[in-house]
Amino acid sequence: MKITIQKTTNPKPIPKDDSKLGFGRIFSDHMFIMEYTAGQGWHDASIKPFQDIPLSPAAMVFHYGQEIFEGLKAYRTADGSVQLFRPEENFKRLNISAKRLVIPEIPVEDCMQALTELVKLDEAWVPHSDGASLYIRPFIFAKDPFVGVRPGNEYYFIIILSPSGPYYETGLNPVSICVEENYVRAVKGGMGFTKTGGNYAASLIGQDEAHNQNFAQVLWLDGIEKKYIEEVGSMNIFFVIGDEIITPELNGSILSGITRKSVIELCQNWGLKLSERRLGIQEVSDAYDRGELKEIFGTGTAAVISPVGLLKWGDKVMEINGNKIGDISAKLYDTLTGIQYGRLADEMGWVKKV
Amino acid sequence: MKITIQKTTNPKPIPKDDSKLGFGRIFSDHMFIMEYTAGQGWHDASIKPFQDIPLSPAAMVFHYGQEIFEGLKAYRTADGSVQLFRPEENFKRLNISAKRLVIPEIPVEDCMQALTELVKLDEAWVPHSDGASLYIRPFIFAKDPFVGVRPGNEYYFIIILSPSGPYYETGLNPVSICVEENYVRAVKGGMGFTKTGGNYAASLIGQDEAHNQNFAQVLWLDGIEKKYIEEVGSMNIFFVIGDEIITPELNGSILSGITRKSVIELCQNWGLKLSERRLGIQEVSDAYDRGELKEIFGTGTAAVISPVGLLKWGDKVMEINGNKIGDISAKLYDTLTGIQYGRLADEMGWVKKV
Repeated sequence: MKITIQKTTNPKPIPKDDSKLGFGRIFSDHMFIMEYTAGQGWHDASIKPFQDIPLSPAAMVFHYGQEIFEGLKAYRTADGSVQLFRPEENFKRLNISAKRLVIPEIPVEDCMQALTELVKLDEAWVPHSDGASLYIRPFIFAKDPFVGVRPGNEYYFIIILSPSGPYYETGLNPVSICVEENYVRAVKGGMGFTKTGGNYAASLIGQDEAHNQNFAQVLWLDGIEKKYIEEVGSMNIFFVIGDEIITPELNGSILSGITRKSVIELCQNWGLKLSERRLGIQEVSDAYDRGELKEIFGTGTAAVISPVGLLKWGDKVMEINGNKIGDISAKLYDTLTGIQYGRLADEMGWVKKV
Repeated sequence: MKITIQKTTNPKPIPKDDSKLGFGRIFSDHMFIMEYTAGQGWHDASIKPFQDIPLSPAAMVFHYGQEIFEGLKAYRTADGSVQLFRPEENFKRLNISAKRLVIPEIPVEDCMQALTELVKLDEAWVPHSDGASLYIRPFIFAKDPFVGVRPGNEYYFIIILSPSGPYYETGLNPVSICVEENYVRAVKGGMGFTKTGGNYAASLIGQDEAHNQNFAQVLWLDGIEKKYIEEVGSMNIFFVIGDEIITPELNGSILSGITRKSVIELCQNWGLKLSERRLGIQEVSDAYDRGELKEIFGTGTAAVISPVGLLKWGDKVMEINGNKIGDISAKLYDTLTGIQYGRLADEMGWVKKV
């Protein structure tokens, strides 16, 4: 793929204090952008200064939500080099989302080339302090100016870069979550397994009500029986019950997280008992009553591992591991971030140097 | 509400041949736009020339689908005046959608003022021929440049106008539809009752597969048991079985259509037996076998009444009323379009002169 590069003539100052980065608010000097036109395919790949995109108010993305995205990070290692964590997995998933949303797919090699060239150009934007990283957001949306319901004929594929601190400002401190009993995020046959705007739009009201009760995230149950655990806000979820580590199986309504996948592979490598299976909230509650619910943690690109300290289900509030991070959560966090930041050997072959 | 008006200095030619308008492709000279900023509320209402909107590639609407819309029409009557059909209902529904999507609401009076002033200014764009109309698209989306999941702090509310021919080029000819058995559009607890992008995004793949089999639309079943009829693509749906006119009850996953509501009110006024209730696809199929399935029709702003001539469920293809428009469908179409275009007296008080 030929990528035209137009460098900025007006570079922005790179933030010096990583502790003030926040998440997802600051953007680097450049972006990748490529256009799709029906009959012509993907064309005009270019890297250009980060800039506003002018769109007709009739652009389909404003009306029919035909949009997908990915999220991954570039990490600065101790030797100053920059590396990515399983980036091909993100672009494979982007194409899985594309298929469900009737968006034209993009070869993973082309995505990787776009990403690599962009990160190389804005390499100085990768933060240097531990826990900070360059958050990468690839996304595709329909842009034709047409207000009728059909798949778009024109799309943009864009990648933007955002130097970011940890997703949760409280860091590895356990979060409090609550089971959502009124609203549904996704259902089998729907789009729950994809990263598309509609899933997040659907989740906002539950999140909002949870925040009002001082919970950081919502634990979503299945949309059919409202019994089985699906995922937590923007993360997958794991439970340690006795000696079994359990995460809900991929059933069509759960996002196939790359951190989730990596956690499963690590646990299996370590010889731990790891089950991907259907897990009812009642089973979790019963295990808690028996004193066998040892740890709960969320997994996601943004937070990596997010221990859960309190789980509320109806009137019942379960305190997990004394509201402290558990051994498995801590070991997973140390291992994953160790690999990501190059402190540990990459025995799994997950890391890609830029 | 104070609306600043900036008229175009470069008016576009108004299409002269209504038969070539198509649907949703041509836009009038002006648009209404108003901004929301957290802490400040809705502000800077203005009407300005129809123009591109520059947005940061990080604008939330591209990523998290926090977007809602409405669709209604302005009609040209025989005396040359312009009128709207139950427009307040659209803006009430816009606010219902807003609530579910955690979007700040807008007083219906302000929406009506915006709409009325815009349509007055672009009044010459309302087509003159029968079946053609000025399609009106109000919409709201989150625009803050932030790539984290939370409700937006900044929004645009925009209204654009599109002179349009009939939605279906085949006009009142019956359409063929097929029952969707793999994909789900919406589920109770989700966003199905709102007009938000995600619902339409979710529906594209089913529509696409239906089109490939030469069906115009998909008939969606409930997402939980996959037994009960919900709606058809972009329309609500009615069945005439024996002397009963049945439409699925509003259950949280069905859009509360304004044409649906009007059809119900008309049928009740006419003394017909009208039921809003749960209706299984098996019941429809059984009625067909007994020879009691007399008519099926869709209802929506775009198509008004869309008779269904063929209904496919699995391997079974049901031909309805000899694939011709039925008496009730025809009467409803004539009455509704008669009121909309001012050919019939507005006994229900549905019409609003501009």
